[in-house]
Amino acid sequence: MYKVVLFRHGESQWNLENRFTGWTDVDLTENGRAEAVRAGKLLKEAGFQFDIAFTSVLTRAIRTLWGVLDEMNQMYIPVHPDWRLNERHYGALQGLNKSETAAKYGDEQVHIWRRAYAIAPNPLDPSDERFAGNDPRYANVPRDLLPLTECLQDTVHRVVPYWEECIVPFILSGKNVVIAAHGNSLRALVKHLDGIGDDEIVNLNIPTAQPLVYELDKDLKPIKSYYLGDADAIAAAMNAVANQGKAK
Amino acid sequence: MYKVVLFRHGESQWNLENRFTGWTDVDLTENGRAEAVRAGKLLKEAGFQFDIAFTSVLTRAIRTLWGVLDEMNQMYIPVHPDWRLNERHYGALQGLNKSETAAKYGDEQVHIWRRAYAIAPNPLDPSDERFAGNDPRYANVPRDLLPLTECLQDTVHRVVPYWEECIVPFILSGKNVVIAAHGNSLRALVKHLDGIGDDEIVNLNIPTAQPLVYELDKDLKPIKSYYLGDADAIAAAMNAVANQGKAK
Repeated sequence: MYKVVLFRHGESQWNLENRFTGWTDVDLTENGRAEAVRAGKLLKEAGFQFDIAFTSVLTRAIRTLWGVLDEMNQMYIPVHPDWRLNERHYGALQGLNKSETAAKYGDEQVHIWRRAYAIAPNPLDPSDERFAGNDPRYANVPRDLLPLTECLQDTVHRVVPYWEECIVPFILSGKNVVIAAHGNSLRALVKHLDGIGDDEIVNLNIPTAQPLVYELDKDLKPIKSYYLGDADAIAAAMNAVANQGKAK
Repeated sequence: MYKVVLFRHGESQWNLENRFTGWTDVDLTENGRAEAVRAGKLLKEAGFQFDIAFTSVLTRAIRTLWGVLDEMNQMYIPVHPDWRLNERHYGALQGLNKSETAAKYGDEQVHIWRRAYAIAPNPLDPSDERFAGNDPRYANVPRDLLPLTECLQDTVHRVVPYWEECIVPFILSGKNVVIAAHGNSLRALVKHLDGIGDDEIVNLNIPTAQPLVYELDKDLKPIKSYYLGDADAIAAAMNAVANQGKAK
């Protein structure tokens, strides 16, 4: 049996400001940093010992991972950041306030942009300063792989191959793997692991910085999965995420 | 032409207390963290852009690296920690105060233990709680490779193969490499790069958290090497290291 631990980054400045973040490299708030320490405590108390970490190339995920590893006294494991674990790219919506966007286009349209499996927001123009091709952190990525916008399906189509090609070999070799990522890149992975349908996955809300443990059989099929920590706090955190896109 | 950047960790708690540290996992002081930020600023101002980082498995080196990468907005590069970049193992001296040890055994004996190329302090007993075989961070290292004590020659004999086998391929493939390590593991590397003799290397003092840039030709022979930053501050920092072992 194998175990793998996933967690979403802690609260970021734009989570707080309720803006569409996507690939924008927004940092954690103080609360987000504290969430990372709490996640580290939970993992330490549960006796987890990691061999290798995977994360996105976005600061909020890496800083959450660092906070967790620091709290666990496990800063010494190798850390592999990769753009394929990035948040879903939000196209031209990146930077806009979710409530304002909802007030302008209606809750329904925003819900479609946020939650429809195969409908992406309008794309960025490649000349837009928000395009990843203009950021040195993506200099080693073939330019035609860098998205201008994504629906969740597009995110699934980069996360799952990365999981299969780059993460699974470590799991099968017996390494204890931890993955620090984002609401939608983790949704993509959970969809794959649990075999969740295209229409259902969009209603799954992953709370910030709550360690999610998957126990997998020899074929990497889930035996069970569970969050570490207080059940009420996790339910409240999921609910907070679900309500973010409403006009208020 | 290739460039590689080396730096020693910032001030640790035991640097401050003037104790033999070796493989003891002592953390940075607040001053050490501030040194890391300053090193990051120097590298950022000089326009360095890294692709990959190598470091030891000791917290003080990793935290210095994290501080540098954070300041440079380059947290997204892969970080490979390896025990072969650890500080020289100080055997049974680990944990002892340098001045007290000098007062007890004499400056000369301490100077020999600190600076003789091929004379190691007394070894730890494998049952000693200080032995790395009792620490989960070394669980994946073959037990018979883990030292009980080391002279600088022993450190050279693990650092140089690691450099050749694990770091050089990245340099030759054009990646910009940064290495965060320790006084003696960097001395070992500098000895190798600059072809310094066994008797001379022991008098080379590498200051904490000062980025040391090597420009290398196609055969990885140094064209030149230099510290970034203020020359007077670097000279003072080197001098402080040189004076650590004296009885006072």
